[in-house]
Amino acid sequence: MLSEFDIIRDLFNQPGLGAVANEHVREGIGDDCALLSIPEGKELAMSMDTLVEKIHFPENAPADLLGWRALAVNLSDLAAMGAVPLGFTMSLAMLGADKKWLENFAAGLKSCAQTYDCPLLGGDTTRGPLAITVQAHGLVESGKALLRSNAQVGDRIYVSGSLGNAALAARHLADLDKWKSESIFESSFYKPVPRLGLGSGAIDIANAAIDISDGLLADLGHICRASGIGAEIQLEKIPLGKSLDVGLDRSQALAIAVTGGDDYELVLTVPEGKAASLESMAKDINIPLVCIGEITRGKGVSCYDANGAALTFQTAGYQHFDA
Amino acid sequence: MLSEFDIIRDLFNQPGLGAVANEHVREGIGDDCALLSIPEGKELAMSMDTLVEKIHFPENAPADLLGWRALAVNLSDLAAMGAVPLGFTMSLAMLGADKKWLENFAAGLKSCAQTYDCPLLGGDTTRGPLAITVQAHGLVESGKALLRSNAQVGDRIYVSGSLGNAALAARHLADLDKWKSESIFESSFYKPVPRLGLGSGAIDIANAAIDISDGLLADLGHICRASGIGAEIQLEKIPLGKSLDVGLDRSQALAIAVTGGDDYELVLTVPEGKAASLESMAKDINIPLVCIGEITRGKGVSCYDANGAALTFQTAGYQHFDA
Repeated sequence: MLSEFDIIRDLFNQPGLGAVANEHVREGIGDDCALLSIPEGKELAMSMDTLVEKIHFPENAPADLLGWRALAVNLSDLAAMGAVPLGFTMSLAMLGADKKWLENFAAGLKSCAQTYDCPLLGGDTTRGPLAITVQAHGLVESGKALLRSNAQVGDRIYVSGSLGNAALAARHLADLDKWKSESIFESSFYKPVPRLGLGSGAIDIANAAIDISDGLLADLGHICRASGIGAEIQLEKIPLGKSLDVGLDRSQALAIAVTGGDDYELVLTVPEGKAASLESMAKDINIPLVCIGEITRGKGVSCYDANGAALTFQTAGYQHFDA
Repeated sequence: MLSEFDIIRDLFNQPGLGAVANEHVREGIGDDCALLSIPEGKELAMSMDTLVEKIHFPENAPADLLGWRALAVNLSDLAAMGAVPLGFTMSLAMLGADKKWLENFAAGLKSCAQTYDCPLLGGDTTRGPLAITVQAHGLVESGKALLRSNAQVGDRIYVSGSLGNAALAARHLADLDKWKSESIFESSFYKPVPRLGLGSGAIDIANAAIDISDGLLADLGHICRASGIGAEIQLEKIPLGKSLDVGLDRSQALAIAVTGGDDYELVLTVPEGKAASLESMAKDINIPLVCIGEITRGKGVSCYDANGAALTFQTAGYQHFDA
């Protein structure tokens, strides 16, 4: 007597998605709990994020892309701690169980799970307004995790990739006709690339790290508060996303890049003496990285233009839809 | 610049609820990830469950009781593996942030967290239809977890506490006036007691265990499927919940007790030679326990009355509201 939800469980336990027992995963999907074995000398890093329909993504968002995004945003948190993925749990609430939607969702999830070697360990399925909660689990050498609270005065501030594409895309997501024809929107919003190699490579190099989910200024602000320091940013160094090239003047583009969220790039603070190591490591793994400023005494994030004039931005932070 | 959701985070990080760093918890609330250190010789057990308004509980359910229940149902899964609680993560989605509601919710959560020594490690808060996802984490001696898949032919089947109170209560939850005046309903549905002492005490004694969330027959059926065996139940041995005494004939009461969910009692299967150890351990910790049948060759759960006649039940399993 298989229920609808048993069938879903089978779909999520398909080869390539559901965890296979190994040295770390003692039990995956199917018992009261999943069981993990953590090797000596490692700590377990865990991050939980929920995506809710009409809050974090529009109605009729493509199911496969949602599957990718739900896992990838959590992997980005692992990256920000320098952790290596081990597996994830997921709770899926939905009002009806549409087979095609579920297959697509599972395919997107599987694609992300396989790309980053992070299988599904267990979770829950239930009726309810569409919402996806994922908890990602990863391993990091004991005592070596990159914290928000360890930035030091004099650290160089680095940011990976480029900023602003995802925030611009988020503004257009609800307009289905538009974003369907512009795949850069789709991928920059729905398919963030967690910077796992950069994060784990920065262990023993960086002092602090965070991923950019709320916007550069907001997230760097979290580092400042947690570390009890300030930060100075040179705005001309900010790597602007390609999609900001079109139809926006520079100050508009800059505002989106530094205040817009969802890029899931990493911000790293690195002692001057280790800056070269960080740059060379990032180059080896082909991740663009640029120094945008410096950690200072004081409080909060200050932004300066090329002439040394201080600029301020309305840091709205996270706010896609009506959230 | 504290947002509404920063304030919530502070509320959840209050003393007695938010985790304090210790030998197991290296980072709690506040960074990209929580960090756990798992002692050598232990495995980490994890269970995730979501409660959705109007599916798992009625509108206007008391916030403090919801807080208790959201954590307790996950602790019950830890109990069913024989694990000892370490900490939990939580994602809370809600449409508005009512201060009084949040304070009551946090108070219920804290009460459960303190009772079972399971502090909050991190999570997420977001706008969305009211839904609470909790993942509980616990420790169990490596290789010793109680699985569903290890029941053996000849095992005695034990059940803790009594069955049926919660299922009867669930039927009346939507009728606020009624259940407000009948506290047995409130507590049997909203305040399940996770049988943590029994579960961890049954390590090295029981072969298999599960907690009763979907109903005795459904959950024992999970053990049968996972272990490739059958089970025979003597119906006259079923410990009937006290609230079934009133206004129900014996066959109605029995049907609710064996098919109704939400009791969060444990079912344990134990080799005959260890039955006395189990009984004496349960007595020592003051948990009622009764032998209700035996694991057999074959398939599925069979029920017999006092005359040896086979009875069948409509095993609807989980279905409180419209789920």
